[in-house]
Amino acid sequence: MARAARSIVVVAPANRLAPEAAEKVAAIAREAYGDRLRLDFHPQCFLASGHFAGTDEDRTKAFLDAANDPAYHAVWFARGGYGSCRLGDDMFGKLNRAAHLKDYLGYSDMGFLLGRLAREGVGRSVHGPMPSDVARDGGEASVLRALSWLVDRDATALEAHWRADARAFAFNLKVLSDLLGTRAEPSFADATLMIEDIDEHHYRIDRAMFHVTSSENVRRCAGVRLGRFSKIPENDPPFQKTDREIVEYWCARADIPFLGEADIGHDADNRIVPFPTALSTTA
Amino acid sequence: MARAARSIVVVAPANRLAPEAAEKVAAIAREAYGDRLRLDFHPQCFLASGHFAGTDEDRTKAFLDAANDPAYHAVWFARGGYGSCRLGDDMFGKLNRAAHLKDYLGYSDMGFLLGRLAREGVGRSVHGPMPSDVARDGGEASVLRALSWLVDRDATALEAHWRADARAFAFNLKVLSDLLGTRAEPSFADATLMIEDIDEHHYRIDRAMFHVTSSENVRRCAGVRLGRFSKIPENDPPFQKTDREIVEYWCARADIPFLGEADIGHDADNRIVPFPTALSTTA
Repeated sequence: MARAARSIVVVAPANRLAPEAAEKVAAIAREAYGDRLRLDFHPQCFLASGHFAGTDEDRTKAFLDAANDPAYHAVWFARGGYGSCRLGDDMFGKLNRAAHLKDYLGYSDMGFLLGRLAREGVGRSVHGPMPSDVARDGGEASVLRALSWLVDRDATALEAHWRADARAFAFNLKVLSDLLGTRAEPSFADATLMIEDIDEHHYRIDRAMFHVTSSENVRRCAGVRLGRFSKIPENDPPFQKTDREIVEYWCARADIPFLGEADIGHDADNRIVPFPTALSTTA
Repeated sequence: MARAARSIVVVAPANRLAPEAAEKVAAIAREAYGDRLRLDFHPQCFLASGHFAGTDEDRTKAFLDAANDPAYHAVWFARGGYGSCRLGDDMFGKLNRAAHLKDYLGYSDMGFLLGRLAREGVGRSVHGPMPSDVARDGGEASVLRALSWLVDRDATALEAHWRADARAFAFNLKVLSDLLGTRAEPSFADATLMIEDIDEHHYRIDRAMFHVTSSENVRRCAGVRLGRFSKIPENDPPFQKTDREIVEYWCARADIPFLGEADIGHDADNRIVPFPTALSTTA
């Protein structure tokens, strides 16, 4: 086989990937790209250790294998869930030059890794669809969107408000809240901060917004954009405020510009948001 | 009526108190203390505005009324839930000398206020039972424990590891997590930090512990004690780690001493933990 134009390896720093999902994604990639793309699923994706896709050590080692392997252009995270913050702290000191030249694509729980990589100036962290999204209605389009970015830098995959000359981040609100004050917190100075969430009660969204908008780092951002907040469980008693009203309220209280909506979320329409790189962050 | 030895006013900075709960608590207090205790429920306790016991303005005003009234020795928070972090930021600049001499007693969501008051050196913040606890099995004992501290400084009401010559705090883990980096975060230097939680999945406890133990302030504490973690919803897949294992893991990873258990929690056995005061924090 001729050398593929792009090569991508999939690892799972949080929950395990269903083998059927990997097969579907591999078939979609073959159909769309043929020999232009080499897509490998690291065997760690399919390990199981309680909640996680293997032990913390398994997941740490697989991430290092993938990131440090010069055969790959990108690391694609298989799935969210929970667990990427448990990877070894000293892992980031073991990343080589190949790791520094890669794209890292995922969202949700992967925000802990994307944030840490962005803070450390390693490669390019990118918010966007993951292989597990193939199971959604419209999941094939999600997978193709992610691949079109990784393989061809397809600008139509980008979130509509992203601009090459402005800093932007996209995070799950809970993950953003829990990475503040940790080594996964990048500088948000002058950046657009896009947030999305799923499965959180309105009162929890409100509490997380209090926490996030109290951060001096977040207060230095250029503004907040509201992604989709989905599957919000019923509040008892009714909260009487929408997700948008909550986000606007806390932005106003913290004097952070509210910039409108963002086309991101835990769904098949989730779009690509590249984070600033070490070069772009000097701006 | 002769002037009571102690006088306490109840306000509700988060969710509303059921009038029947107030009646029960009033009866318990009368039976136990007669004329020695004046116990007043501020009418704001019974307001309703969506999720909250009145609007943010109602709750802010009631708290200021209560704290600044020299007729009272203590402010007793009616109930947790969610909402005390929404009170007016400028409220803390309006507290008078009477407010600076009071005890403030509550737990759970009230941690946002207790933390802020402790940080600002206002009066004495105290973790302990609230009037709403009267509805629990064994709730009368909870209420009497709280009153015995407020009225008579009964040492048997204290959490067994509390010492007058050492700093201690007690927080709901989620509230502690969400007050880090905000104006409700006191210094934890050399303090014992007791944590409890309710209604959180194991993976959420784990994620909150990552966040909390990443804090430089928390890392300066003398150690963590594990209160009760109750009503933990089932994890899917099973998390295969207990609450104690999770807390010990993250303490070890952050080099924070794990000191064992603490007799606090969302239950009738919840005990009293006075926070450091402005005087004691000079230690």
